[in-house]
Amino acid sequence: MHRIDKIAGTYRQLQQDIIRCIEDADGLGNFSNDQWSTELGSGVTSVLQEGTVIEKGAVNFSFVKGNFTDRMEKILGEKARSYAATGISSILHPENPWVPIIHMNVRYFALDNGTAWFGGGIDLTPHIVEPADARLFHQSLKEVCDRFDASFYPEYKKWADDYFFLPHRHETRGVGGIFFDRVKPANEEDFDKLFRFTVSLAELYPVIYSGFMKKNGRRPCTEREKQWQALRRGRYVEFNLLFDRGTKFGMESGGNTESILVSLPANASWEYNFIPEAGSFEEETQQMLKKNIDWINFGHNS
Amino acid sequence: MHRIDKIAGTYRQLQQDIIRCIEDADGLGNFSNDQWSTELGSGVTSVLQEGTVIEKGAVNFSFVKGNFTDRMEKILGEKARSYAATGISSILHPENPWVPIIHMNVRYFALDNGTAWFGGGIDLTPHIVEPADARLFHQSLKEVCDRFDASFYPEYKKWADDYFFLPHRHETRGVGGIFFDRVKPANEEDFDKLFRFTVSLAELYPVIYSGFMKKNGRRPCTEREKQWQALRRGRYVEFNLLFDRGTKFGMESGGNTESILVSLPANASWEYNFIPEAGSFEEETQQMLKKNIDWINFGHNS
Repeated sequence: MHRIDKIAGTYRQLQQDIIRCIEDADGLGNFSNDQWSTELGSGVTSVLQEGTVIEKGAVNFSFVKGNFTDRMEKILGEKARSYAATGISSILHPENPWVPIIHMNVRYFALDNGTAWFGGGIDLTPHIVEPADARLFHQSLKEVCDRFDASFYPEYKKWADDYFFLPHRHETRGVGGIFFDRVKPANEEDFDKLFRFTVSLAELYPVIYSGFMKKNGRRPCTEREKQWQALRRGRYVEFNLLFDRGTKFGMESGGNTESILVSLPANASWEYNFIPEAGSFEEETQQMLKKNIDWINFGHNS
Repeated sequence: MHRIDKIAGTYRQLQQDIIRCIEDADGLGNFSNDQWSTELGSGVTSVLQEGTVIEKGAVNFSFVKGNFTDRMEKILGEKARSYAATGISSILHPENPWVPIIHMNVRYFALDNGTAWFGGGIDLTPHIVEPADARLFHQSLKEVCDRFDASFYPEYKKWADDYFFLPHRHETRGVGGIFFDRVKPANEEDFDKLFRFTVSLAELYPVIYSGFMKKNGRRPCTEREKQWQALRRGRYVEFNLLFDRGTKFGMESGGNTESILVSLPANASWEYNFIPEAGSFEEETQQMLKKNIDWINFGHNS
């Protein structure tokens, strides 16, 4: 059995675990399971629409193999004849503006020339930033990271700040999280460490998010908060269509459009030149959409 | 006076004419006029939000000069030290799903090495395709084109079909129109012809659109038609963020984000795997979002 088959098997199982945990927390919603297969491979796109807490969410698994194209060579700077890749990718858009949007991805990419790497991360996009939630979120990520390598959290936290950034808006997508890409195992031990790290992230993901669902999933909210949520969703759409590498790579490599763009929210708004009122909750959130905020010590060290 | 100053002066006046005509047709809405200037140049971003017929629309004028960057050299395949560019760009999103979205752009781009070109076009994106409207629209475009050159309409109509296309959806953005880019005048006479052609397009634009505004601006519509409109707007957002060259160029060259993204609708929706019912008006529209439809003779030659 190839190494990647084992990884794919574990990821496939983790997809099911995530689905069960999110369904439990939602209470009403059930994920559909669209199995697909093409000449490149197969996957399962699992989508929940109109749940109690989740308005639109997806947990996707895929396992594909194919020729290593010139385009891939150019993007990745690697030479090979074929590749294989497997991963889980998930985005959850809640109905309630007080529950954050969350995104998680873990992936393994292997070339026939022996080169292989892991990538992934979890990041949080609150519509309305609550520092205590951001702190809890980052603390949980750091705990998992530290179990594997003390360098992971500081390094991958910075990577997330830099990656989940909208340069044209001069703002981060949300409060960040961790992100890493093309981390190549140095040896067998390292491979094992990285694999177990991605598994731990996929396990943490539904646990931490079901906490947020329970906390604010049924919180009363105002029309103004809903409008702000729609504008924040607009920024999320901008990031995913303008910058997200997974979206770009998926579209270019002929992936299934509905599976790729299921990451977009059920709706989003754009208003020309919207400037939040001074002192408003909207302004407060906007001012916290910055890189290099030490969320774990936020408010403690000034 | 440089040639481009004269062109910019004419375009600036045309922007005002377009605004007056659309305001008249709307009855209620007034365009705001945001004058901006940076080290690159200046412009006026005119935006109408929440009119009677227009929900969100913009008519932008700009006139910029700057260094010809390596990035521009790579994209355009031209060598120069500096460039100057002026143009009008407009998108109108109506409230009513029975009124189409329209887009117009005319532009002139000149390099300090003597090379210069015109570009532009008008294209129509009905939420619900009505062949009679598409025919009228294409007939008007053809009439204007034919006044200048019999080759313009067939050539630029095809160019619009190819350009306003969403490959990942296998569908055109709407019923097309005309599009041309980097058309270089061969001589003085040709320059004059192309300039007057862009002027005529900018003149036709509000005339033809105010017709559509009057026709269906107050037509009663159903919740289902509004939902379909929101999904069609989602496709419009996808095109503008994933493929539109003006958006990409504007963002990369450090343009004003609010002026560039004012092209996005007030709201848009995405639903996973929405498949229109057989025989529904949604399906009928989707089946007409194809390249190479001869709209002028649509339904007459079968």
